[in-house]
Amino acid sequence: MKILVINCGSSSLKYEVYEMPAQTSLGKGLIERIGLDNARLKQGANECYLEINSEIPNHRVAFELMISALLHPEKGILKDLSEIGGIGHRVVHGGEQYAKSVIIDEDVIKAIEVNIELAPLHNPANLAGILECYRVFERIPQVAVFDTSFHQTLSPSAYLYGIPREFYDKYRIRRYGFHGTSHRYVAGIALEMLKRSKCNTNLITCHLGNGASITAIQGGNSVDTSMGFTPLEGLMMGTRSGDLDPSILFYLVERGYSVQDLNTILNKKSGLLGLSGISSDLRDIEAAAEAGNEQAQETLDTYAYRMRRYIGAYVANLVKVDAIVFTGGIGENAVKMRERICNRLENIGIHINRELNKQVGGGKGVISQPYSPVSILVIPTNEELQIALDAMALINEDENRLAI
Amino acid sequence: MKILVINCGSSSLKYEVYEMPAQTSLGKGLIERIGLDNARLKQGANECYLEINSEIPNHRVAFELMISALLHPEKGILKDLSEIGGIGHRVVHGGEQYAKSVIIDEDVIKAIEVNIELAPLHNPANLAGILECYRVFERIPQVAVFDTSFHQTLSPSAYLYGIPREFYDKYRIRRYGFHGTSHRYVAGIALEMLKRSKCNTNLITCHLGNGASITAIQGGNSVDTSMGFTPLEGLMMGTRSGDLDPSILFYLVERGYSVQDLNTILNKKSGLLGLSGISSDLRDIEAAAEAGNEQAQETLDTYAYRMRRYIGAYVANLVKVDAIVFTGGIGENAVKMRERICNRLENIGIHINRELNKQVGGGKGVISQPYSPVSILVIPTNEELQIALDAMALINEDENRLAI
Repeated sequence: MKILVINCGSSSLKYEVYEMPAQTSLGKGLIERIGLDNARLKQGANECYLEINSEIPNHRVAFELMISALLHPEKGILKDLSEIGGIGHRVVHGGEQYAKSVIIDEDVIKAIEVNIELAPLHNPANLAGILECYRVFERIPQVAVFDTSFHQTLSPSAYLYGIPREFYDKYRIRRYGFHGTSHRYVAGIALEMLKRSKCNTNLITCHLGNGASITAIQGGNSVDTSMGFTPLEGLMMGTRSGDLDPSILFYLVERGYSVQDLNTILNKKSGLLGLSGISSDLRDIEAAAEAGNEQAQETLDTYAYRMRRYIGAYVANLVKVDAIVFTGGIGENAVKMRERICNRLENIGIHINRELNKQVGGGKGVISQPYSPVSILVIPTNEELQIALDAMALINEDENRLAI
Repeated sequence: MKILVINCGSSSLKYEVYEMPAQTSLGKGLIERIGLDNARLKQGANECYLEINSEIPNHRVAFELMISALLHPEKGILKDLSEIGGIGHRVVHGGEQYAKSVIIDEDVIKAIEVNIELAPLHNPANLAGILECYRVFERIPQVAVFDTSFHQTLSPSAYLYGIPREFYDKYRIRRYGFHGTSHRYVAGIALEMLKRSKCNTNLITCHLGNGASITAIQGGNSVDTSMGFTPLEGLMMGTRSGDLDPSILFYLVERGYSVQDLNTILNKKSGLLGLSGISSDLRDIEAAAEAGNEQAQETLDTYAYRMRRYIGAYVANLVKVDAIVFTGGIGENAVKMRERICNRLENIGIHINRELNKQVGGGKGVISQPYSPVSILVIPTNEELQIALDAMALINEDENRLAI
């Protein structure tokens, strides 16, 4: 069965076709700048590389372009659309309605609509992608895989904020957490690597990319995560501040900043970029620090220190931890940052092997000392594959149910 | 030498007289509602109890009333003002200027003024108290003991936020921390109880009162603390929210809340009060939870859970921890909450002895198991005594210097 994985954003459309259950990627593409100037589609690589520069005023046109690229006679991925047996969509916000991925029906569409207020930038685009697929693929089953659903197992102690209860009751303000698909995917791979069963294994998964979050997983369930009501909370990120004294906002409003300005500053101009004054890309900051830039060094140290705070917090709450997993662009590739983060964590059972850390580089592997009570793993994430796996499993389940 | 300890707030004046170095409290008083209706002074207890109801329009009148009460012929604490050899003031904010307590001179007064923008409610009142003492006590040496100074040993990694660097450079926005006098006091007592020297001892001190903060202390120096730029950040408190996704503010502003409303809500209507919907007093919430109120139980669990997050974070960053100290109204008296917090922390070496915890109650004592790698101590705080100790030490040092 071929599964089409769709990640439809407000101005972008990412897609990938998987042959399942072989888990083979048959090809993928990206449409950028939908509704903007200089829109384009890029698909494949090397001799299969296809680039189309074209006006793409909306998602409908983007989907038509994707179809034509998928079916391109020389550089296409498919011969016929009927090869697609199922579609898996990344959907950012499932609110409290969905603790798992789900076959899309009218109720699911309504729920995605209801959660637009919680994810006003993402859910409308995700929904547009689903509706376009209905148009193009008609009755092919579609599956929604929510960024939030993995974290629906958090206890009230972990998801409630210390604010008036009515904000939860009335506005549904609570910790939701994000990156759930990535945390869940690497947790699954970690169990294979550790040769352990889910139910007696506790993990801390660190998804460190331009966005960053860390999750405590107990017996396969997320029990705490650093992103909160929105992806702004938690770790310092590429351009997001992460944790902050909320009074800083009151202080800056008094000094003439508008709430809108502050929203932009905290989301787009903070984090690694804001503190270093150099770049949102960790590699640029590492280079500057090596060249003796003190502010760059402080930024790296602060990034690592804030990571350690969370690792400690989750070690405390997990009772025991079997492994820490690094993933995401930084988690997978930033060898020095992994070393910096794990430095001085021997107290809580985390002993990194510096040589192994270098050897593993950006691949998959174990980077802890053999005697480390907590294993340290590097696992490249693959959210698209997890979405394809979910789609396949749900579609098979549904067909079996219908066949009975 | 008798030391007068002054804690002068915007509408209150607390004072206490210590006989030093004996550390004996000779008596204390409180003036409430300065500038408001129904102002009054209360001093002493039992047969020495003195209450004066009088109009107290400003701090000058409050100080005159304090003097008359101190010298009261039957219920007074002093025979003559000349008995006072030094005065110690609690001053909330020393900014980055003061890492220690200091004899007050013109430079100190200027620094307190400069830091009014960082503590607009407290520093002006603290300063008023100092100026009134100059008027009344003339050349008696005065000492400023800052709530923030103990935390000036934090590294940039611990005090920098992930926001544009200019906010630190221009507005001095960073983690300052508060409750420093209390954390420092109980840390000193802990060393005595543990019979350990400062330089090789690491502590986590939990000041849990209506305000609450937790501090990581390494070799006598504060290396991290949960309150930040203001006392709003960190743990859940009586009416303060503690940590929060900053985006919650943006979300609520969009729904019609003003920034001023939100400031009030997060500082005065959140925390235990807001989440329980019952009271800011932990005892009321404990009672409601015992009577089966689910919301009360969730509030208690959330309070403890958020404490554990910080304990874990600080254990991770301290490399090793010798003891955890509970102090403040809740830390000293809330036996069940101490048990709730320490529950499931065995993983990081914290083993509470439930029987000892009950026996110690609100007194001073060790409540950990004998085999616990981390000792757990309950220590009643005494900020006034710490202020008297600082004042005495600095005045003696100053006199010795002058005598040479």
